[in-house]
Amino acid sequence: SPASAQDGAATGAMDLGAIGMGIVIIGAGLGIGRIGGQAVEAISRQPEASGNIQTGMLIAAALIEGAAFFGLILIAFVL
Amino acid sequence: SPASAQDGAATGAMDLGAIGMGIVIIGAGLGIGRIGGQAVEAISRQPEASGNIQTGMLIAAALIEGAAFFGLILIAFVL
Amino acid sequence: SPASAQDGAATGAMDLGAIGMGIVIIGAGLGIGRIGGQAVEAISRQPEASGNIQTGMLIAAALIEGAAFFGLILIAFVL
Amino acid sequence: SPASAQDGAATGAMDLGAIGMGIVIIGAGLGIGRIGGQAVEAISRQPEASGNIQTGMLIAAALIEGAAFFGLILIAFVL
Amino acid sequence: SPASAQDGAATGAMDLGAIGMGIVIIGAGLGIGRIGGQAVEAISRQPEASGNIQTGMLIAAALIEGAAFFGLILIAFVL
Repeated sequence: SPASAQDGAATGAMDLGAIGMGIVIIGAGLGIGRIGGQAVEAISRQPEASGNIQTGMLIAAALIEGAAFFGLILIAFVL
Repeated sequence: SPASAQDGAATGAMDLGAIGMGIVIIGAGLGIGRIGGQAVEAISRQPEASGNIQTGMLIAAALIEGAAFFGLILIAFVL
Repeated sequence: SPASAQDGAATGAMDLGAIGMGIVIIGAGLGIGRIGGQAVEAISRQPEASGNIQTGMLIAAALIEGAAFFGLILIAFVL
Repeated sequence: SPASAQDGAATGAMDLGAIGMGIVIIGAGLGIGRIGGQAVEAISRQPEASGNIQTGMLIAAALIEGAAFFGLILIAFVL
Repeated sequence: SPASAQDGAATGAMDLGAIGMGIVIIGAGLGIGRIGGQAVEAISRQPEASGNIQTGMLIAAALIEGAAFFGLILIAFVL
């Protein structure tokens, strides 16, 4: 949050961006963790389909990754 | 939130936008994570239907992704 | 947070970055923990597929690891 | 937090680094705890695959350990 | 926290280190507790594999123990 850094006289203002970033990572961890966990379980059930499973895992995980990075960057540089 | 940055004399004002963004990502992570997790499990059960499974996964996940991005942008630039 | 260190006259400002970092690690721990937990369970079900399982585990865990490190670095040096 | 130690006149500032560190360990404990718990369960199901299981357990746990230590060090020396 | 002890004129500063240490132990307790609980359950299922199970349990628990001790020491002497 560059804006709040410029006015040095701000008193009592709390920069909650770090907490927001932490919550962003909780969301990403829950989502990608679930996908990855079930992907390795799926590979153990059908080892010969591991290519398809990893492709599907990556597509869904990349969606969460993209949203999380977008949120982190918005918090750090725009907000 | 550009509005709160312009009045430098704001005292005691809390910018809760970052926390809101974090909660947005929790929702997106939970949703896409569940879709992706069950999609890879479905592929392991029916490997020959992986094309159809990934199409369905992408349609549902894109809906969540769109809502999450819209929420992030609203928090950052409009609120 | 180097910005808040430069204005020594800030009174009442709370540096919440440490709490944000902690929440980041909760997210990473939940996510990688779930992936790793289900990966070792998957290996026990299909020991001969342990190579594929570890590859899938690493891909998903690296996504969470990357997002978590990005968040930590943003909190420490940018925010 | 060396910065907050230099300006001795700061009044009302709370050093939340200790709480942040505690939350870091909660994340590491949840993550490595899940991996380790499911690893010993996996060994009990396939005792002859205990080598592969421990390798997978260590890889995933080391990722969480690395992120947790990085967070602790950032909180103590950079923030 | 030796730093906050040197400037005796700080008013209103709260030393939250004790609370942080408590949270550290919560994390360690959750993690090692889960590992230990599932380890004794695993031994009851495969008593003849108790050696392997205890080895895996100790490796994972030692990782949490190391992170927790590191956090406690950082809170007490560096912060």
